[in-house]
Amino acid sequence: MAELLSLITKPNDVKEIPEEKLPRLAAEIRKEILITVSKNGGHLASNLGAVELTIALHRFLTFPEDKLILDVGHQCYTHKLLTGRRDAFSTLRREGGISGFPKRAESECDAFDTGHSSTSLSVAAGMAMARDLKGQKNRVVAVIGDGSLSGGMAYEALNNIGRLGTNVIVVLNDNEMSISKNVGGIANYLGHLRMTQGYLNLKNSVERKLNRTNIGGALAKGIKKTKDSIRQIMIPGDFFEEMGLTYFGPVDGHNIAEITMALQAAEKVRGGVLIHVITKKGKGYSFAEAEPSRFHGIEPFRLATGKVRESGEAPSYTSVFGSEIVRLGMKRPDIVCVTAAMAGGTGLAEFSMNFPGRCFDVGIAEEHAVTFAAGMAASGLRPVVCIYSTFLQRAYDQILHDVCLQKLPVIFAIDRAGIVPRDGETHQGLFDIAFLSSMPGMTVLAPSNGRELRKMLSYALTVDGPVAIRYPKGSQDSDLVPDEVSAIETGRCDEVARGADIAISFLGPLRSTIDEVTESLAADGIRPTVADARFAVPFDRDWIRGLAGTHRVLVTVEEGVSTGGYGEAVAAWAEEENLPLRVVTIAAPNAFLAHGSRAELARQCGLDAGSIAERIRGLL
Amino acid sequence: MAELLSLITKPNDVKEIPEEKLPRLAAEIRKEILITVSKNGGHLASNLGAVELTIALHRFLTFPEDKLILDVGHQCYTHKLLTGRRDAFSTLRREGGISGFPKRAESECDAFDTGHSSTSLSVAAGMAMARDLKGQKNRVVAVIGDGSLSGGMAYEALNNIGRLGTNVIVVLNDNEMSISKNVGGIANYLGHLRMTQGYLNLKNSVERKLNRTNIGGALAKGIKKTKDSIRQIMIPGDFFEEMGLTYFGPVDGHNIAEITMALQAAEKVRGGVLIHVITKKGKGYSFAEAEPSRFHGIEPFRLATGKVRESGEAPSYTSVFGSEIVRLGMKRPDIVCVTAAMAGGTGLAEFSMNFPGRCFDVGIAEEHAVTFAAGMAASGLRPVVCIYSTFLQRAYDQILHDVCLQKLPVIFAIDRAGIVPRDGETHQGLFDIAFLSSMPGMTVLAPSNGRELRKMLSYALTVDGPVAIRYPKGSQDSDLVPDEVSAIETGRCDEVARGADIAISFLGPLRSTIDEVTESLAADGIRPTVADARFAVPFDRDWIRGLAGTHRVLVTVEEGVSTGGYGEAVAAWAEEENLPLRVVTIAAPNAFLAHGSRAELARQCGLDAGSIAERIRGLL
Repeated sequence: MAELLSLITKPNDVKEIPEEKLPRLAAEIRKEILITVSKNGGHLASNLGAVELTIALHRFLTFPEDKLILDVGHQCYTHKLLTGRRDAFSTLRREGGISGFPKRAESECDAFDTGHSSTSLSVAAGMAMARDLKGQKNRVVAVIGDGSLSGGMAYEALNNIGRLGTNVIVVLNDNEMSISKNVGGIANYLGHLRMTQGYLNLKNSVERKLNRTNIGGALAKGIKKTKDSIRQIMIPGDFFEEMGLTYFGPVDGHNIAEITMALQAAEKVRGGVLIHVITKKGKGYSFAEAEPSRFHGIEPFRLATGKVRESGEAPSYTSVFGSEIVRLGMKRPDIVCVTAAMAGGTGLAEFSMNFPGRCFDVGIAEEHAVTFAAGMAASGLRPVVCIYSTFLQRAYDQILHDVCLQKLPVIFAIDRAGIVPRDGETHQGLFDIAFLSSMPGMTVLAPSNGRELRKMLSYALTVDGPVAIRYPKGSQDSDLVPDEVSAIETGRCDEVARGADIAISFLGPLRSTIDEVTESLAADGIRPTVADARFAVPFDRDWIRGLAGTHRVLVTVEEGVSTGGYGEAVAAWAEEENLPLRVVTIAAPNAFLAHGSRAELARQCGLDAGSIAERIRGLL
Repeated sequence: MAELLSLITKPNDVKEIPEEKLPRLAAEIRKEILITVSKNGGHLASNLGAVELTIALHRFLTFPEDKLILDVGHQCYTHKLLTGRRDAFSTLRREGGISGFPKRAESECDAFDTGHSSTSLSVAAGMAMARDLKGQKNRVVAVIGDGSLSGGMAYEALNNIGRLGTNVIVVLNDNEMSISKNVGGIANYLGHLRMTQGYLNLKNSVERKLNRTNIGGALAKGIKKTKDSIRQIMIPGDFFEEMGLTYFGPVDGHNIAEITMALQAAEKVRGGVLIHVITKKGKGYSFAEAEPSRFHGIEPFRLATGKVRESGEAPSYTSVFGSEIVRLGMKRPDIVCVTAAMAGGTGLAEFSMNFPGRCFDVGIAEEHAVTFAAGMAASGLRPVVCIYSTFLQRAYDQILHDVCLQKLPVIFAIDRAGIVPRDGETHQGLFDIAFLSSMPGMTVLAPSNGRELRKMLSYALTVDGPVAIRYPKGSQDSDLVPDEVSAIETGRCDEVARGADIAISFLGPLRSTIDEVTESLAADGIRPTVADARFAVPFDRDWIRGLAGTHRVLVTVEEGVSTGGYGEAVAAWAEEENLPLRVVTIAAPNAFLAHGSRAELARQCGLDAGSIAERIRGLL
């Protein structure tokens, strides 16, 4: 039996597959996704859940004229397979290969780059208005998960779509999950819709919506006498209808015919329409169905067992943070933790089990998370906000306006800082040093190993103001340091080697890289002074002043963008102080960094040992 | 008749005023507010609208134990007058005087500093959880306007309050306005609640909520046969109830007894409660009632006429932008404008009248505004996003992730950049250069006069990527420049005087300040080279290289924080290039800047002519 997927070599080919063969196509796509993700890692559960939905959308839409915006992009694999990227699919998430997220640069069928949550409705609104203004007729469809609906900007967009009157179809892909279990009022509400209506209301729903003039009479027949039953019959999707959208659903998201019917009906309605589609995360792979959170974003794993291949690596920064915050939490009842749908990813699982009343997962809502923490800090608690570097960008103003302005003692435990392999541009943690450093009163720390991270957390609890501690994805280098690291003192670096002529100050987990650099330089008889900077803000001015006279050059090294970063601040200060010491900054360029392995990306940034050593040699 | 307000000298004194005298107290408070704001300027209409509401809250709450969080703070004047700040009230918004916004540093009755929109619900949630965890019993009340409800983080917070189960009272102060007319689905929804219910449902509403067991029977009697009437009777405030809050209202916000009754009822309900209060913006002052937008934030005005005192100043940057964008809009149908509840403040009134279909006020929703613009840009339009510098902070991630990542040609017209007098810390536009400069591909411009602003807008339209143009509140200096300014060329400054030894590069509207500086220096025989930098990113490297050899020192001057700013980037680059030229940065310190006059604040920042000249003399 010929493979159906191999018949689909370009956009819109899927329309040629006979309807009765679509389930087989879906099975082939699932197999392709499973094989590739088991080798390359990737977002498995969400992609498996959206196979039929994506097939239905591709039969309904015409690419590239019609615009499909995939919120976050965790469900884009089927879209890629159906738009001529099947041959390239084995390169998924590899350097130079295709991205795990939609990319306009990769295909004209990718209408908009996504990666962060809750943007799709705003994009769709913009594209729909542009279409209207240009007198075009294409369709605009956004697909958004129920988790992404907890992000405030999705609500801001719904609020406007209802009012613009422009034709937009919003497909709510409801799998009862964001990355972990979805939370909040809106999640409860969707649960209510799911439970009270079942899947079979669609036909009624469509008929009702398309025949609004009869609404009074038709509905009168069905009135029952309790609040819930009236709500159920009269106004399914009331929340969305209040926002000015027409609601259809719920629809079985694994039934292509049913989804198609809803899409066709939606097209006949003017203005914004929301189609509520119920899908199962991990669909078709039993391990992923059973543990969708674990299979959300997963490293390469064995298909037969669902087990991730053991790396044999040292514990990650995340796990060091996770155990230390539990230890501190035992001692200090004023410590509370806040995360935004990332309790697992940020290492809070154990804290959450030990102190369920002191651990707050607010859903995908970084802005609220930070200001909620600020409120707790203003009331005497010591909140620790655990958010990935790239997602913390969402809360820039809340950190500045709600935390720093009042010098509130909120600790930001910033995971996935620096280079993040495989996920690409939208997930790199390269901007945090720059955006935090200009915030008045913010202390910015980066540990170079797990022991330092532990000490920095204790230190942060002694500071009467906001403290950010940024650390990367991946294992930490405790083995490289003595059992005890020296105490953390405000604005003091840790000098780890005394040499002459040249000094290197590295920020964050670059100890092993710098060790390689110094070994390489030793071959040329160069013996630099080396310090673990620890503090980006306030950086160690005394140590740098002490270099002047005995050293010609200070090289700073950091995994973050150069502009506004640690090195630039040091260089500008040295320039202004007129120190007899040249400061050279080695940092990531101000550019977006695509997906690849950590080593490949470090090389691209000039942050591998070879590039750093070469740069230093060039200075002498 | 003794003045009642003079009897209130400390928190909680208002509880001693007999109920029948409260209308007189309200009148006295309005008079006090009117007299002070007519002299000092300030937020008039919103404060006049919240007098009775605030009195009712102060009779219900006990300060400082209970926590009252005022969203934005545009309604805090009565609160200040009732908490021992009557004597200081005449210093409102003056340097060293009391702030126009809540400030913890000013009074222990100000529970949390506000200034930006939509933060209060997150703060209240945090304070309520902290109270519960500490075993305390105080009340937590947030007052939020209907306009602020369009901000996404308010929704994120509602979504969590409904779930936390903690006791929080949310007072929705609904005046049908944000700063200008409120927009969007939620605004329509509130309008629906207002119209269909009237004010008299409160008693029923309260009885129903407090007697939920009878709900089925009681409601069954009232059922009518149309959707709207059922919605009205059965589920007022359904939107909020879906989020998990109990809804009371609508309540007449100028009836203290009615508000008090609602507050007392709310206290008996477990979990989050929302009280929907209807107020009139500008209440009690006919000019403000008639034109609430004009009297939102107003300069000193004549009480008898409502007219602002003529300043005789040159047209503002805002008005130059406003007329130029209309001129450009005539020529280019692809130009669209987006603003977030600030069409008037950003100068879009004329554009909006000329091109109503191409001007989008999305309400207080900066995140959506930026990504909505990104969607339009990706579809071939040329959006101009008009947001104040301080509020653009809300959209940091959207600018980076949705605009810069895809190099989309969105123009950011950033008003109120640099020093903003009178409103204080939360409204200064000092961070934009820093946060925009590290975003890959962003061009950052600042005009030094109105003609340059016009040219920069035309220039921005030629750039195939994002461009930010930042300019201040206040009048521009077109008189100081020749009729024609030179063409804007990418990364090129405009050298306005050639001297020797010392060079000054100023960014933005500092021409007259620098002219004063050079005059002062001329007395000492110092004749600096002077350039209008124009570009913060990319800055003019060739010009700086050309200084080396003939000049010893380059002084950069900008109205923004130093860390991550224009000068720091120049200094770090010069340091790294090892140029034989010392770069000294004059910028605002990394600190929050309180309210005061422009001149006072410039002096505090060391950005007045005297300070700059002194600093330069010290360098020589």
